[in-house]
Amino acid sequence: MKPVVVLVPQPQPVERIFRPEALAALREEFEVVEPEGDAGLDEALGGAWAVVGQPDLPSERLALAPHLRAVLNVEGNFYPNVDYPTCFTRSIRVLGCGPAYAQAVAEHALGLALDLARGISREDRAFREGRERYLGEGNADAVLLRHADVGLVGYGNLGRALRPLLAPFAPTLRAYDPWLPDAVLREADVLPASLDEVLSRSTFVFVLATVTADSQHLLGPRELDLLPEGARLVLVSRAAVTDYDALAERVGAGRFLAASDVWPTEPVPADSPFRSLEGVVLSAHRAGGIPAAFREIGDMVLDDLRLLARGLAPVRMQQAAPELVGRYRNRPAG
Amino acid sequence: MKPVVVLVPQPQPVERIFRPEALAALREEFEVVEPEGDAGLDEALGGAWAVVGQPDLPSERLALAPHLRAVLNVEGNFYPNVDYPTCFTRSIRVLGCGPAYAQAVAEHALGLALDLARGISREDRAFREGRERYLGEGNADAVLLRHADVGLVGYGNLGRALRPLLAPFAPTLRAYDPWLPDAVLREADVLPASLDEVLSRSTFVFVLATVTADSQHLLGPRELDLLPEGARLVLVSRAAVTDYDALAERVGAGRFLAASDVWPTEPVPADSPFRSLEGVVLSAHRAGGIPAAFREIGDMVLDDLRLLARGLAPVRMQQAAPELVGRYRNRPAG
Amino acid sequence: MKPVVVLVPQPQPVERIFRPEALAALREEFEVVEPEGDAGLDEALGGAWAVVGQPDLPSERLALAPHLRAVLNVEGNFYPNVDYPTCFTRSIRVLGCGPAYAQAVAEHALGLALDLARGISREDRAFREGRERYLGEGNADAVLLRHADVGLVGYGNLGRALRPLLAPFAPTLRAYDPWLPDAVLREADVLPASLDEVLSRSTFVFVLATVTADSQHLLGPRELDLLPEGARLVLVSRAAVTDYDALAERVGAGRFLAASDVWPTEPVPADSPFRSLEGVVLSAHRAGGIPAAFREIGDMVLDDLRLLARGLAPVRMQQAAPELVGRYRNRPAG
Amino acid sequence: MKPVVVLVPQPQPVERIFRPEALAALREEFEVVEPEGDAGLDEALGGAWAVVGQPDLPSERLALAPHLRAVLNVEGNFYPNVDYPTCFTRSIRVLGCGPAYAQAVAEHALGLALDLARGISREDRAFREGRERYLGEGNADAVLLRHADVGLVGYGNLGRALRPLLAPFAPTLRAYDPWLPDAVLREADVLPASLDEVLSRSTFVFVLATVTADSQHLLGPRELDLLPEGARLVLVSRAAVTDYDALAERVGAGRFLAASDVWPTEPVPADSPFRSLEGVVLSAHRAGGIPAAFREIGDMVLDDLRLLARGLAPVRMQQAAPELVGRYRNRPAG
Repeated sequence: MKPVVVLVPQPQPVERIFRPEALAALREEFEVVEPEGDAGLDEALGGAWAVVGQPDLPSERLALAPHLRAVLNVEGNFYPNVDYPTCFTRSIRVLGCGPAYAQAVAEHALGLALDLARGISREDRAFREGRERYLGEGNADAVLLRHADVGLVGYGNLGRALRPLLAPFAPTLRAYDPWLPDAVLREADVLPASLDEVLSRSTFVFVLATVTADSQHLLGPRELDLLPEGARLVLVSRAAVTDYDALAERVGAGRFLAASDVWPTEPVPADSPFRSLEGVVLSAHRAGGIPAAFREIGDMVLDDLRLLARGLAPVRMQQAAPELVGRYRNRPAG
Repeated sequence: MKPVVVLVPQPQPVERIFRPEALAALREEFEVVEPEGDAGLDEALGGAWAVVGQPDLPSERLALAPHLRAVLNVEGNFYPNVDYPTCFTRSIRVLGCGPAYAQAVAEHALGLALDLARGISREDRAFREGRERYLGEGNADAVLLRHADVGLVGYGNLGRALRPLLAPFAPTLRAYDPWLPDAVLREADVLPASLDEVLSRSTFVFVLATVTADSQHLLGPRELDLLPEGARLVLVSRAAVTDYDALAERVGAGRFLAASDVWPTEPVPADSPFRSLEGVVLSAHRAGGIPAAFREIGDMVLDDLRLLARGLAPVRMQQAAPELVGRYRNRPAG
Repeated sequence: MKPVVVLVPQPQPVERIFRPEALAALREEFEVVEPEGDAGLDEALGGAWAVVGQPDLPSERLALAPHLRAVLNVEGNFYPNVDYPTCFTRSIRVLGCGPAYAQAVAEHALGLALDLARGISREDRAFREGRERYLGEGNADAVLLRHADVGLVGYGNLGRALRPLLAPFAPTLRAYDPWLPDAVLREADVLPASLDEVLSRSTFVFVLATVTADSQHLLGPRELDLLPEGARLVLVSRAAVTDYDALAERVGAGRFLAASDVWPTEPVPADSPFRSLEGVVLSAHRAGGIPAAFREIGDMVLDDLRLLARGLAPVRMQQAAPELVGRYRNRPAG
Repeated sequence: MKPVVVLVPQPQPVERIFRPEALAALREEFEVVEPEGDAGLDEALGGAWAVVGQPDLPSERLALAPHLRAVLNVEGNFYPNVDYPTCFTRSIRVLGCGPAYAQAVAEHALGLALDLARGISREDRAFREGRERYLGEGNADAVLLRHADVGLVGYGNLGRALRPLLAPFAPTLRAYDPWLPDAVLREADVLPASLDEVLSRSTFVFVLATVTADSQHLLGPRELDLLPEGARLVLVSRAAVTDYDALAERVGAGRFLAASDVWPTEPVPADSPFRSLEGVVLSAHRAGGIPAAFREIGDMVLDDLRLLARGLAPVRMQQAAPELVGRYRNRPAG
């Protein structure tokens, strides 16, 4: 008898996260149930060995699933709609697909940083308007990433994915992450630093932190004022970490340049000042959700279900940490 | 008595290529002469130990400089305005500053490639026009550089500078360079390949070749048609290598995406079709000429003059190869 | 009130794993109890928040420790003397110090491989006996690691620590690990392969697997016969993985070379044939236990206790996987 | 008509440096002449386009070779038996095969360093004598290369080959090379330093310098005394750089450990104190001359001859620098 997998990936469409071969393999190797509505889910849980998706799983509902061994989140964030303590007590694996996005975000972040370093999108716009500047003329503020001072705010999945991409630039790399001991950073050949030090000493700053009660507006007016004149700030994790009003003001005044993939309100209001700022690169929450990342989610799910079915430990998805799972303050992205 | 250095860097302004400290050191350690006009140069050559610049140096003029030991080009290309054979026969070192630009070009090229991979400047433009697409919506054609097939057309200074930046993406890397034996590429962990193979098997292609009689329109219609559907083409060396009419046609038809830093005519005509193509990133010959690169030139000149004055070999600038110096067909960039 | 840490690291001496400053910090930040004997331990558990060490912790004893949040193993292996299911049900963190040894083992393994590649210890011995061979004379079987075919048997802590050390040699790297999906290896730019393929196609083979019921004599006569003539085999994880009688026979016959840090019986019998084989490098279980690794254990313990005390997730030690913890068949090393 | 290549590689046997296919290709693409004796050589030079080997080439003999375009040294050192100024004046390419050995030397040097770090050959000897020490017992002086202070004396071919092998150990890397400006080292992410600083601040020191009039006994008693207690010294370039009497004394006294591949007199005298020192790894000038390196020489020769025949610049062998070629004081190794 094949283990029963309850597949409720919404809002992720099944075909977005599973390549056809992955879906076929899933159906071949597992008994896949795709229930409709809450009642359908409740019923399906009776025989469920694993849930793939992020449905509400309060204690009453978990009680309906006596055989449940794993919950595999395919959206990317752990929300407070699951009774995590019960899962841990029952040794139900709670897994997240966050790492699937990390490479995509890291490459996008590097692309944004190089854009800011060299004015790529700004000068492309100028070119289209017939006011391009040749050779050194448009390069007065162009800088190298090579041997630059680079700061990372947060060193989790995203920081770890970005770090190797920065290696050939041989930066002086500082990171601030209050959840990590210094040794973890030193092992990655990154200098541990305070937030103030990261901000005040870096030409390039990548904001890669997740949102918790503690990190709301971690970058407020005071912190943004620590950035060196002409710094390049890349925001690719969560908007709530940064005070965007203070950001718009400073970029508008030419204090530094910024690129942002996340926004306090999405869609961004039509009259947002950011839409017309020259010193910014605008990106519409596009860093992580690319086809290759979505397909990676399905592959991770299949790989880890297979390991669990063999009695082995999952290795591709991220395990929810009992200590952390209640701290996140992320909102659904879509 | 200090060796006499004739400083005629035009069109490079002295203060662009020499940091104040470098210029001060140059004047301190050498007898610096800055002649005016041809007559002034002729006169200055009588005592010259080195020439810093790219003035016309035909055989008659070299004959005026019996003590000349080195000519240090600070523009970046070897032009046919020097009697190179006489220099070689007289063991006059002919040095070029090309490597000073390589890191800047490589970083710009990577920035352009990541822009094409993710539509960074295209979506920034859309955002400014209020038609941005969030999350996966604008990402249908977004691809990773990680594990991609990447091709290099030419593997000289630029290829060698770009290669380490690509390393963390672990690409399958192929290069075509008819001036290099396969072993040089294999030592760099690059697969030697024919031009056709590079073009037909790569998702990302970087054109890094210099111009010779043989490489004019190396990428013509037939070659551009070899590129896979949806490829990303990055042009950062010399425009003459590529047929830009054929390029515009194919990018306009949506066959592939391109980013170009070099143009057959600069400034680009106001009515160039490129100015309004969605599938292109436009850059106005800005890849190399950034402040850090210019200052690097002065530092290289000073370092190599010091070595030569100590009777040692220059190591920072590039030596003109007797076999190659007559082959280049580069035009002055400015 | 400071959390109570029960410190019973035996057989590890306290001062071996804790630097003086680490020990002072531990005592400052926690209430450290060092009980004597079983009765002392039983009593201490009543108030225990964490246990540092690897004492027997059957269910009855765990019942004595109602406040226990974490067990931190400072020896390196998970033995069956702990009631792991109860720990998981009670959300007690079970952490191991295995990663502390990984860098030391990886460096030692690389050292052994380079010794085998070049005959370093063999020729040192010859030199001492006055029969050294100069220049090419002693180099008939010397090989480069650069661009070699390299195989890894097992890709856990040790494989992940060794992998970056091999990167600059640009090997064709294959790994066999039945607990890992192919994607994990591909992400590390390693080719997934069967055991037979790893053995038959590699010039250098590193045995890095842990022992389970399935991996006893994983490398038996048949498997060892797959190694290419003149291969170099490096054994640094667990002796039980390999049939040492078959190994001695083949190395003695000159089929291939080997280096071993682990032995079926330790101390190795005085009459072991290995002691006089020319084709072997002998190492007395020294790969991991170096001062820097021991001190790392104490640092890891302190770091993770601090995180846990702050309500955060431990990040330095390895979490016991519920699925795997019952599978290991390691014996105490000392 | 094929260009005439005079092949006089002695003391290198032809078949050692040319793989069968390389030799066949050489004979196919060039007119290969292998003259006997001086008279034969004199005669052969009349039509010679290139000489492969290191025969005496004084001015009178060069005068016999009006068509000579290149001299390709296949031994590894530039000796004073060639009239280099005449070669340069006549634009005859003078090429050396030194780089062919660099990877082999670098790998051997790393192997020696790891041996010293962990006592690999010392403990192998002990094991054979039945006095091996298990686990931590023999590890009191074992150290990691990871994050160590590492010094390079000389940063030429060997330093450049070793540098990437050290990268994954993330050392603090200092180099002393009086022929190089600081910028060359900084580009390689190496800290420029004085000799004294390199010696006094490094746990590992690699001596990679060539011999010139200035570098004889560069490491004398005073310099060796700068090494930290317990340092590891690896000597792989030229013995003349170091005072071996002073070295034996200090290693014998247990001040530091050393590994040496080169010796003031080769063969080393039977009564050399080094033969019985515990703190040394003995290697009989074996670092470079391995089969893969020898074959690389032939491949390099063939590649560069092909380029020269096509009118292109050689790229694989090292060009003799007019400024340096008279400075070397190397003696033939065999």
